[in-house]
Amino acid sequence: MTSRKGNLMSVRSDIKVLDATIRDGGLCNNFEFTDEFVRELYKTNIKSGVDYMEFGYKASKEMFDESDFGKWKFCNEEDIRAIVGDNVSDMKIAVMADVGRCDYKKDFLPKSESVIDMVRVACYIHQIPAAIEMIEYFHELGYETTCNIMAISQANLQQVDEALKMLCGSSVDVIYLVDSYGSLYPENASTLAQTYLAAAESAGKQVGFHAHNNQNLAFANTIETLSYGVSYLDATALGMGRGAGNCAMELLLGFLKNPKYNLYSLLSFIEKYMLPLKEQGVVWGFDLQYMFTGQLNRHPREAMAFTAEGRKDYCDFYKSLLDNF
Amino acid sequence: MTSRKGNLMSVRSDIKVLDATIRDGGLCNNFEFTDEFVRELYKTNIKSGVDYMEFGYKASKEMFDESDFGKWKFCNEEDIRAIVGDNVSDMKIAVMADVGRCDYKKDFLPKSESVIDMVRVACYIHQIPAAIEMIEYFHELGYETTCNIMAISQANLQQVDEALKMLCGSSVDVIYLVDSYGSLYPENASTLAQTYLAAAESAGKQVGFHAHNNQNLAFANTIETLSYGVSYLDATALGMGRGAGNCAMELLLGFLKNPKYNLYSLLSFIEKYMLPLKEQGVVWGFDLQYMFTGQLNRHPREAMAFTAEGRKDYCDFYKSLLDNF
Repeated sequence: MTSRKGNLMSVRSDIKVLDATIRDGGLCNNFEFTDEFVRELYKTNIKSGVDYMEFGYKASKEMFDESDFGKWKFCNEEDIRAIVGDNVSDMKIAVMADVGRCDYKKDFLPKSESVIDMVRVACYIHQIPAAIEMIEYFHELGYETTCNIMAISQANLQQVDEALKMLCGSSVDVIYLVDSYGSLYPENASTLAQTYLAAAESAGKQVGFHAHNNQNLAFANTIETLSYGVSYLDATALGMGRGAGNCAMELLLGFLKNPKYNLYSLLSFIEKYMLPLKEQGVVWGFDLQYMFTGQLNRHPREAMAFTAEGRKDYCDFYKSLLDNF
Repeated sequence: MTSRKGNLMSVRSDIKVLDATIRDGGLCNNFEFTDEFVRELYKTNIKSGVDYMEFGYKASKEMFDESDFGKWKFCNEEDIRAIVGDNVSDMKIAVMADVGRCDYKKDFLPKSESVIDMVRVACYIHQIPAAIEMIEYFHELGYETTCNIMAISQANLQQVDEALKMLCGSSVDVIYLVDSYGSLYPENASTLAQTYLAAAESAGKQVGFHAHNNQNLAFANTIETLSYGVSYLDATALGMGRGAGNCAMELLLGFLKNPKYNLYSLLSFIEKYMLPLKEQGVVWGFDLQYMFTGQLNRHPREAMAFTAEGRKDYCDFYKSLLDNF
């Protein structure tokens, strides 16, 4: 077992905080953020010391109609530039590319012509070969890359070992542990993180963690895995993200000891932009229906439907989950 | 360092779950629960496999006027019996006695005449001698006893060592780590728990943990400390408790592997009794104002006032906390 890196008082210079509000939060409002919202979040993230801001997906326009979604599902170069100009800041820009739902050979410019710094390739564990093909392509174009292996709580250890071996032989920069179902307990998360770290460190790669809050453990799991050496930490303003949401940025910035991270700027943004979003009826965050799917290690889709329908019959819902296990 | 006890799959027969909904939750509604509510919770706890149910405080009637509070601030013997009869169940009954706010020599019957099984003595760390005097008195009367040392995040290690030494020389059965300010991170909580456990085990005593959710870590800290050997675990239905609330019973029961614990009964209670309480305007649970006081390791009193006033100016509130540090 790897030991903890640093302690509760120390600064870890390898830590990188990534704001995924627009990308994961976009799953709650069909990516329909105003330009003002995105621009203010961009400025806020810079002031808060955030290291990467993820703007959204690069989704296939063959598969998805642009008129059905907000622009951040597609992250056209000109739309990002309308917010960030040439991004004259220390903060880097990330986008996500889903295996199987991205026309990556068509929709990406060479890095030299793009304001995007990092492409995060999201895949399920059986899609690692497809992910690696994309990663090598993005690497050739000059981008930093991550591989975000989703739904890791359903993978078996043999698959994890094999995936790590393949990724360690690739050009990927960061390997992400993604608890899509919010099913991991801190002990699971730290064991998995240590497995990732052991492989990644020997290949000169970093490890990241992306949490979901189905069991109210998103923040706890994030700081637990970071304590063992995970460096790339995903968080979102007010925890905005699909279903139960993600690790809340305000909890994470309050925890980190590096003085570059600034909580106050984020609070202003939350007060002015996030709370109105909630008041407008955009729904996310911990609730019993997500706890059920988290405890049962299942995709939250039924819980999301339960939420969307405004149902409150938690007992019947719970029984229905046990029925169709 | 002690190692973890058991693992994520195993049953630990030393675990005791204590429901503190009426006692800590009573701080949110002035202890004004209906008899129906308390009776249904009592039945639910029995069905759910809960080991102890705390009914409230034994507060001094000299200091507090009975007409100003619901009956569970005083826990008269006849009021408990009106709910539980002779408590013909495996679940034990607990009450809390605050150092300095309890006429303990007047208000407790000998155990042989009471339906109460356990008295939990709550104190700050400088009140340990007063707590021990009460513990010895309750022990003589025949009760199980705990000492709940509150606000432990503000105690220094020397105080903790001294307090543990004194308690280990007393008749107390369980020593509770109480994170009143919700300021502990899992690493802090587990380090403290290991200190408590090392002392307690050599004296044949048990250790308990009582969490607050100011940084959304109540459940995480509870399962972290339990993994190192803490046996007595406090939780409340829907996390109901002062300010940001406590560890949610539904998260804890979903985590524990002992088949005696049953989530479904609790869900029925939550749906029928807890959600209406929220709808009636009783307020508790994680929110930014509590996160601030948790991060700053402070009593949540200003955050509670902010909540009571229905304020939403989080930035101004945060600045005011920094002002009067």
